[in-house]
Amino acid sequence: MSKQAIGVVGLAVMGRNLALNIESRGHAVSVFNRTREKTDELIAEYPERKLVPTYTLEEFVESLEKPRRILMMVKAGEPTDATIAALKPLLDQGDILIDGGNTHFTDTIRRNQELAKAGLHFIGTGVSGGEEGALKGPSIMPGGPRDAYDLVAPILTEIAAKAPDGEPCVAYMGPDGAGHYVKMVHNGIEYGDMQLIAESYAVLKQVLGLSNDELGQVYTEWNQGELDSYLIEITSKIFAKKDEETGKYLVDVILDRAAQKGTGKWTSQNALDLGAPLPLITEAVFARVLSSLKTQRVAASKVLAGPDAKPFAGDRKAFIEAVRRALYFSKVISYAQGFAQLRAASDEYKWDLQYGTIAKIFRAGCIIRARFLQKIMDAYAKNPQLDNLLLDPYFRDIAANYQAALREVVIQAVSAGVPVPAFSSAVAYFDGYRSERVPANLVQAQRDFFGAHTFERIDKPGSFHADWS
Amino acid sequence: MSKQAIGVVGLAVMGRNLALNIESRGHAVSVFNRTREKTDELIAEYPERKLVPTYTLEEFVESLEKPRRILMMVKAGEPTDATIAALKPLLDQGDILIDGGNTHFTDTIRRNQELAKAGLHFIGTGVSGGEEGALKGPSIMPGGPRDAYDLVAPILTEIAAKAPDGEPCVAYMGPDGAGHYVKMVHNGIEYGDMQLIAESYAVLKQVLGLSNDELGQVYTEWNQGELDSYLIEITSKIFAKKDEETGKYLVDVILDRAAQKGTGKWTSQNALDLGAPLPLITEAVFARVLSSLKTQRVAASKVLAGPDAKPFAGDRKAFIEAVRRALYFSKVISYAQGFAQLRAASDEYKWDLQYGTIAKIFRAGCIIRARFLQKIMDAYAKNPQLDNLLLDPYFRDIAANYQAALREVVIQAVSAGVPVPAFSSAVAYFDGYRSERVPANLVQAQRDFFGAHTFERIDKPGSFHADWS
Repeated sequence: MSKQAIGVVGLAVMGRNLALNIESRGHAVSVFNRTREKTDELIAEYPERKLVPTYTLEEFVESLEKPRRILMMVKAGEPTDATIAALKPLLDQGDILIDGGNTHFTDTIRRNQELAKAGLHFIGTGVSGGEEGALKGPSIMPGGPRDAYDLVAPILTEIAAKAPDGEPCVAYMGPDGAGHYVKMVHNGIEYGDMQLIAESYAVLKQVLGLSNDELGQVYTEWNQGELDSYLIEITSKIFAKKDEETGKYLVDVILDRAAQKGTGKWTSQNALDLGAPLPLITEAVFARVLSSLKTQRVAASKVLAGPDAKPFAGDRKAFIEAVRRALYFSKVISYAQGFAQLRAASDEYKWDLQYGTIAKIFRAGCIIRARFLQKIMDAYAKNPQLDNLLLDPYFRDIAANYQAALREVVIQAVSAGVPVPAFSSAVAYFDGYRSERVPANLVQAQRDFFGAHTFERIDKPGSFHADWS
Repeated sequence: MSKQAIGVVGLAVMGRNLALNIESRGHAVSVFNRTREKTDELIAEYPERKLVPTYTLEEFVESLEKPRRILMMVKAGEPTDATIAALKPLLDQGDILIDGGNTHFTDTIRRNQELAKAGLHFIGTGVSGGEEGALKGPSIMPGGPRDAYDLVAPILTEIAAKAPDGEPCVAYMGPDGAGHYVKMVHNGIEYGDMQLIAESYAVLKQVLGLSNDELGQVYTEWNQGELDSYLIEITSKIFAKKDEETGKYLVDVILDRAAQKGTGKWTSQNALDLGAPLPLITEAVFARVLSSLKTQRVAASKVLAGPDAKPFAGDRKAFIEAVRRALYFSKVISYAQGFAQLRAASDEYKWDLQYGTIAKIFRAGCIIRARFLQKIMDAYAKNPQLDNLLLDPYFRDIAANYQAALREVVIQAVSAGVPVPAFSSAVAYFDGYRSERVPANLVQAQRDFFGAHTFERIDKPGSFHADWS
């Protein structure tokens, strides 16, 4: 019996869609699931496809060509450790285990070390694009031993999304946890993008009173220009969708309580560990958390009044354009923070991340795919060691031309009592980053005053302590 | 030879000052340090004090009355574990180890469990007040087994700071990690307070052009009113201080690069874990991080221009009052977030924290001591289960009366290009918290669109998924 080039363990929606994607490129795929029902369902649904069902891990492992390529699509954490433990005794030196789950990068680093000792290769890979991406072409962010990556690269390249220029959205990210780290930051950026769009919606609705139809038109238009992206596209469609039961716009029927699965939180927590400023994405995470306190918010809305509502007195069309610019410039600032964090992580964990390549593979397949990623690619092509995207000429010009709009939108929102934590944080970061001098001298004076923590001086090196009393 | 009621291990500045404080209340104190020099120095400096030097841990332990009370003032982390491991075999059942270091509360929970198994009591306590507080009276936040606390309470009560009404600034916080947790949040709040003061300084200096003399006067005046606090007091003194070398104001000679020791970061990271919104303190932590990127900021300041400077056209005195109100209201918002996090932690870790008691022991001795803490005590006295301080009538009135000033200050700063991340975050949180509806419905629609994550509806319970295509 002939053996398969690759196998997939875990046939929940992502695993099964990736198996179908691989099969669609002409490969027979061994499949295994902890409970046999999922396996049988898949085979029954696609009887004509070259999917080879197996019902024990032994049978699964035996069905694969050596070195074996095994893609695990199981739950992150304990279940992944359990699957590895069950597979490990059945594998041979040089076999390759690929974890495609939403794993914390520190777990991936640990597993890499443990499996390397047993002569096994471990690749932790981010896979973004949701169900549909998995089936038709996701963005893939693999990290691990380079030579192991080379053995799986042909298949990953086949199944990955293709950017508008035909380039596949997969590339080697770096050693051990690099792939899962990049996926984590991708998700943090996704939190930021979604919060910024939500704030633009709140401002357009609450300051200008736009209807859902008008909002749909605005986002459709924006999607033709530099904001062109998957998230703007689906936003424009969301405003058109009616609820089948009530006939109302579905967006108005949906409860305003946003959930989170933790990758945004991880990104912020790691930024704090690295000492990399990531305020915008962190505000986005906290905005979701605050949204989930619905009961408290409803109670608070009855006792905490905001400013008196005044009808918008300016030019409505000009203000919509200001919101568009505010959104685009804030997005630039968010990516500047995210990519600066990638750089801090690359230094800390010795990954030698290629920032231009990361932007390149984000261009299609993943949730944050957007035309603007090309500009980030271009920036790093010009200067691979760019400290901050805001320093690149293209983004510098956006800052110069769009900051007035961002300021105007924040001022209007603050005046009207519309919460814009991410827009506000974007301005504050921009103004802080471009400040030669910030008031941290006072903070250092205070720390030295009460705790003798010492301070540095502007006129000579060294640590100093003053007698403040 | 008579034995001592308490011993101190670790004679760096905090340990030695606490030993002197205890001795000053009439107790002989055994002292021990890993290297004997520190012990000898202390004894030589204070020959007349009842400090009993010991030079081995055996001698130290033998010199103490049973049950032994041992205060460890050693570095957090490894050194604390090493000290515990060295002491453990020398101790008897019922002895009490007190960790007064800046320990992460999860370490305290772990050590509590480990030592309880050996029949030893472990108390993790926050100690705030810096060197001077340790010597004259700190604020003390002990957590651990209640019966062990009762055995050390008399001494802790003697050495603690006394509030204006004579009440000692020490109280039992709760089981295992509760004391170190409260200290961590204290420090997070301290980060917020310091950043808010720094922003008020930046606005007064950059928008109004106040001189250091004028700034000193402003903070001196503010310290007479509802902002009366240790940090405002030292700020007023800082602006008066001249550099001995250059004759310039010292604050202008200090480098604007603020350091951090991690407790602010821990507070934010734990807020993210708990799902408790803590944006203001987190912005304060990130502001320190951004300040530390001095080289990048200097480079960026040369290529990223801000808005054109316009001289301030309004009433200067009224604007100074607006800044005062913005500072006070933002401080209220910061404490509302911090105390809401204490509540989330109390639920999560089963601590039964007493929020009014916590405000009570913050009133003296610690860095955030302030007149306004009495208002927090009062609020929790009226309603011990208050969801959020902003809902208390006193703070509700502050919100009603001061929000216009906060909005005005943010608007002026955003217009002028002065970074105010914490002020901005305060407005955004206030407006989010008092919003019956936030735009998270759009976020949920997006998540359901691309990932079938489902959403809730406003009109009936359950999880729903729409066919968006």
